[in-house]
Formats: sequence, structure tokens, C-alpha cells
Amino acid sequence: MDRADIAVIGTGPAGLEAAITGTLRNKKVLLLGSADLSMKLVRAHEIQNYLGFPAVRGEDLAKAFQAHLDQLGIGITEERVSAVYAMGDYFALQAGEKMLEARTVILATGVVQGKRLPGEEENLGRGVSYCATCDASLVKGKKVAVVGYSAREEAEAAFLSEICPEVLYFPMYPGTSPMPENVKVMAEKATALEKKDGAMLVKTGEKAYPVEAVFVLRDAVAPGQLVPGLETEGAHVKVNRRMESNLPGLFACGDITGTPYQYIKAAGEGNIAALSAVSYLDQRKN
Amino acid sequence: MDRADIAVIGTGPAGLEAAITGTLRNKKVLLLGSADLSMKLVRAHEIQNYLGFPAVRGEDLAKAFQAHLDQLGIGITEERVSAVYAMGDYFALQAGEKMLEARTVILATGVVQGKRLPGEEENLGRGVSYCATCDASLVKGKKVAVVGYSAREEAEAAFLSEICPEVLYFPMYPGTSPMPENVKVMAEKATALEKKDGAMLVKTGEKAYPVEAVFVLRDAVAPGQLVPGLETEGAHVKVNRRMESNLPGLFACGDITGTPYQYIKAAGEGNIAALSAVSYLDQRKN
Repeated sequence: MDRADIAVIGTGPAGLEAAITGTLRNKKVLLLGSADLSMKLVRAHEIQNYLGFPAVRGEDLAKAFQAHLDQLGIGITEERVSAVYAMGDYFALQAGEKMLEARTVILATGVVQGKRLPGEEENLGRGVSYCATCDASLVKGKKVAVVGYSAREEAEAAFLSEICPEVLYFPMYPGTSPMPENVKVMAEKATALEKKDGAMLVKTGEKAYPVEAVFVLRDAVAPGQLVPGLETEGAHVKVNRRMESNLPGLFACGDITGTPYQYIKAAGEGNIAALSAVSYLDQRKN
Repeated sequence: MDRADIAVIGTGPAGLEAAITGTLRNKKVLLLGSADLSMKLVRAHEIQNYLGFPAVRGEDLAKAFQAHLDQLGIGITEERVSAVYAMGDYFALQAGEKMLEARTVILATGVVQGKRLPGEEENLGRGVSYCATCDASLVKGKKVAVVGYSAREEAEAAFLSEICPEVLYFPMYPGTSPMPENVKVMAEKATALEKKDGAMLVKTGEKAYPVEAVFVLRDAVAPGQLVPGLETEGAHVKVNRRMESNLPGLFACGDITGTPYQYIKAAGEGNIAALSAVSYLDQRKN
């Protein structure tokens, strides 16, 4: 398998700028993420402070970004990376069944977006979980619910169905694929969570479904979970001004490095991260 | 005199983004610098990695930046700041004869471009000066030379001609405007400076012109010289990831904070610096 010079994970402004800068510096860049670019960006009503684009709609800014990728012939590989392993002189990236390889990695996966459900945060660890893999042993044999924010979470529900007798799956997106028999795909959307009489209730406006635990699963993964050994500060990757993490060859940029969560800040950091990766690669060449 | 919430010094991408973000956050912003924006930007042949503007000419990018300022009604105050003094709860900015005031300051003045002239640094303060206003009294009645790196320095030469009988002006750029009679505009470029027999020689390859003092005037001033007490690292202001300098209330962004010297990096840092200044102001309000 071809080993990329730079794997960029994430297609928001930080990842795009990193891929552009890396490509312009003649590095073989593997840009991984959604071909629709960042949903947060595309859905932004109006952005006022991205220098050069006065009062621009997110959709239009995304089009300008896409045109920039097109002009440089940069394609997006639609893979979801679930883990990044530092192997010494390269990185192995788990993407579904596949294992990809890259000499350097730039994390630009953003932070968890969107409003939390009412009752979600206060019950975290007390009936609400963000990680099926981590908390599987706690819910073995119990009836659970999964609130899935993308089709990617169906695999998590299927995994839980192997250890739980019944899984209620609340898709927060349109359209689901066939699921195991004991996964019940609900037609209603979850609107709130509540702890009552020792059980968790998943509320859907009209009804309330009692379960023993609820998994709320969204696109962004906590960085420490994604990359074993990565130094983090809360939800953020700890980086220096060169966007270097504690792992040599692994860089981060954009929202994942911390506030302010701003498009132009993210793009600027993407540029720095790419040039740091280039410099890292060039030093190792000699 | 009105005290600004934020004085932004410099009209390159970093300063412009800082002014835009500060204005959008309802702060009173004083944007100081050249109304022609950064000469480095305007003259850039083609910029390939400013995300959203594929392969754009510097001139066109500058126009997009100007349109952004216009849309938000942000004007540029054409003053050249020669010194910034931390006064405790505000900053005093020396701008020619005037003293301006601001609660916070964002330095976005870029870095000194181009190589120093041979003999320049070793004779600094011993016949070579970077500031006509500061050292005017020392050269009164003497024959001096000005090595000017942009048309803006012509005003400095004219100022010196009011107190010096003869001013030799070495323009390091093409084309000059009419100057006072006792300013002699030289056809040759300065290539080196030398101290000899108590006089300064301005060398031009073939000839050497003796004067009593030489003013070498470039667009950017060394940050430590601009702000007494400011912690620097070589030509750069030392900042953390929030773009905070060692002086509370004083922030820096863009090329002045170090490499990479890239437009999108500068703009991203301008955004961070402005939000840090806003946060500083808001904390002091309570």
C-alpha cells in the first residue's frame, strides 16, 4: 500500500488549508473526511469575519473552498478514521476494515458540534454514555438506547445488540440500513433524556421510552480516544505554536486545538501544521 | 481625546482581521497604518494557499480585504506609530507629534523585510538611526543621508530637510515624488554603510558619500524598539497561543510573531489576538 507523506484527517477549513499547503509543497497528501466538507461550515447562516469574504453564507464559503481544492486537483478520500497509531517512523490509520499509512498525520477533526439534548450532560456517566466500546461491559444484558447522529453509528448499535437483549435505535438523520433483529429502529427523534426511578427515559415529544442506559453518538471523537498516547487538555489536543503535539510527526489544527472556534483561525493553523509537517519530513529525508 | 478600546497597528492581513473581529465584537477599534494596505501583499504576484482564493493576485486579494473593511465601515487612520508605552491601565501611542490612547494594543506591523545593509547594524546609534523623529535633535544643522525603502519615507526626508542644510535621499524603490530643494535625490542605490574618520559613508558600489548621520527607514520597526519592555525573540514578539505578549493588554499577530510568513496564518492570528483583547477588556469592565 502507498504510504502518504501527510494524512490530513478532517475536511473543515483547517484540514483543507493543511491539504492545500502540503500539496503546494509537493508532498503526497491523503485528505480523509466527508466530501461534503464540514457540516458546521456548510450550514452556517452567515460568516462575517473570514477576511476577504464579507458577510458570506457558509454554503458559499464552502463552494469557494471546494473550488480551491479543485484548482489544485486535491480529492477527498471518504473514510472515517477510528484510530491513529504511532508506529515509530510512520502512522497507521484504522479506517473501517482498512489500515492506511502515512509518514505524518494532521488532526483536523473539530470538536463535538451541536446542542446537547436536554438531560444529556447532567446524566453523563449516570446513564448516558458517549462510547459504546468503553461502556459495553456496564450494559451487558440490559436494555439500552442509542441516539445516533449519523449512519456511521449503526455499527455501534449493531455491536451493542451482540451483548444487549434489546437496543432501541433513534436515528437523528434520514434513512437507515438494515439492522440486527434485536435493534429496534425508531421512527421518532429523541428530543430529551431524563433520569426517572433509576431508569433513563428517551423522550420523543409525545412518548418516553425507558431503558437502562443511553448512548449518544456523534461524528467527532475525543482526540485522546482517537490517538493512543496523545496529550490532551479536556476536549482539545495540546499543541505548541508550531501545531506540534507530544507525538513526533503528529500535528493538530482548527477547533480541536481549542478556542476560539473560528474559521479563519482554523485555516491559519492548518497552514502552520502543514508547514511543520513538511519541515518534519524534510528533516527526516536527509 | 477619545481612548480606543483596541488600537491595531498594521494593515496587513493580521491587522485587518484583528480590526474586523474587534469591530464585530462591538469594540471601538483604531486601525493605524497605510491606507494602501500591506505593500508586501499588494505586490505579491500570486498567492496560492489563502483558502478560498485559488491562485489569486496580491492586488486582487487586497481588494477583497478592502471590500471587507468597507462593508463593516472600518476606516484606516494613516498614522505611523513610532513608540507604544504601557501606562498601566492603557497604552500611549506616539504617532508623529500626536499621542494616541488605547486600552489594548495589537501589534501587526510585520517583520523587517530584506537584508540589512553591510555596516548598518554595527553602526546603529553610532551614526545610523532608524527614526528621524527620535534623533532629529542630534542631527540639527548637519548634512545627513536617508536610505528610504518606500515612498512613505520621503516625508521623513522632507522633515529632516527642515532642520538639516542638506539631505541626500537614496530611494531603494523605483520613482520618487518632488522633494524640497535641499533634498538631493540620488540616482544610485545604497549598497553599504561605513564609519570612517568620524563620518558615515554611504556607499553605492562605485562612489562613497560622506555624511554625519544616516537614517535607514523601512516599513517595519523592530518590535522591541517600538514597545519598551516588550519581550522579543530576535526580530519577533514572544507570544503564547492566545497571542498575548509579556505586557498585559498588548497582543501581537502575523509575521511579527514569527514564521511561517503566510497570509492565512497572519489572518488567523489576527482573529485570535482580537478575541483575546476583547476578553481582556471584558474582564476589566467588571
